[in-house]
Amino acid sequence: MKYPKHLTTLIQFLRQLPGVGNKTAERYAFQMMKWKPETIEEFSKSINELHTKTFFCNTCNALMEENHCFFCTEERLSSQILCIVPSFREVFAIESTREYSGSYHVLGGLLSPLEGWGPERLNMMSLIKRIQEGSFKEIIIGMDATLEGDATALFLKEELKKFNLSISRLAFGIPMGSSLDYIDGGTLALAFSGRINF
Amino acid sequence: MKYPKHLTTLIQFLRQLPGVGNKTAERYAFQMMKWKPETIEEFSKSINELHTKTFFCNTCNALMEENHCFFCTEERLSSQILCIVPSFREVFAIESTREYSGSYHVLGGLLSPLEGWGPERLNMMSLIKRIQEGSFKEIIIGMDATLEGDATALFLKEELKKFNLSISRLAFGIPMGSSLDYIDGGTLALAFSGRINF
Repeated sequence: MKYPKHLTTLIQFLRQLPGVGNKTAERYAFQMMKWKPETIEEFSKSINELHTKTFFCNTCNALMEENHCFFCTEERLSSQILCIVPSFREVFAIESTREYSGSYHVLGGLLSPLEGWGPERLNMMSLIKRIQEGSFKEIIIGMDATLEGDATALFLKEELKKFNLSISRLAFGIPMGSSLDYIDGGTLALAFSGRINF
Repeated sequence: MKYPKHLTTLIQFLRQLPGVGNKTAERYAFQMMKWKPETIEEFSKSINELHTKTFFCNTCNALMEENHCFFCTEERLSSQILCIVPSFREVFAIESTREYSGSYHVLGGLLSPLEGWGPERLNMMSLIKRIQEGSFKEIIIGMDATLEGDATALFLKEELKKFNLSISRLAFGIPMGSSLDYIDGGTLALAFSGRINF
């Protein structure tokens, strides 16, 4: 198809978004052609700012606003609870539950022996330093329920046991709204072994 | 959720794309954060070019490259066939079939009595002028199989009959790959009335 060159370029970029194929990228581009020039300009600017305005906190490694971290406030740090998560995305997922008001530590990845990702990829040095210098009493390990998540959680448990803290991991079980019929055996087994008094 | 301001802005723009909700917009934004700064910059630039480099042909109203129209070549114009379509998007759809090598005229819309869109919204003046001044022998009406498409096709037939040209409309029927079981009654009825000798 003979699209003008600038449109072809845009479509190729849009195709790099997750789950976007040729048809969808074309649909996006055609929709954007209907936007007002101001909208186009601001959209373009906001994309450009991704690499000039993205900052990570030196303490917790989470995504931060240019000059302050939402999660390293005095109040949160004084809560004495630290939740360890693989990436900054989980921080936002946990925040949206409004269940947690302690501080965070972003590990920056998961261990994956199969892919050769060892502990050197994780922000362990800064974690150990924070625990040594801070006054945390409880550590919550917020890892995925996958092989990599399990490996990382076990590794953390080993590394942190010398600090004599209460260490917990997020519960496994039936996700809300699910019916037992449709749940896989693995989840069901975890829900059994983790059953709670009722 | 407390995303940094520049990220929230980007997510809001992405949500304006067709079929993109909050979750998908977030997914896109997070994916884009992994792109290289050069990619981000070029992507941003290519979006900005949408309103500086988008040109429409003065003759056929289709989307054109900055300095020439793909569809108004001498060869195509001399084919004496003119296909009338609602918008420039259909031009690309028809081009991708490689079935047609005549010229195009983009109407710029469809009649919709229900929404109060009358003939004044269509590029009729330039169409009439082209037919009067050109040497077209055949007109193909390439309209949607919808109420608006039908209304526009009938309107065109009325307007153009005085020029004594052969006028046709794209065929209706069973789409390729479909089984009769799953086709709606309307399409089946059109396929019956338009049946061809075999």
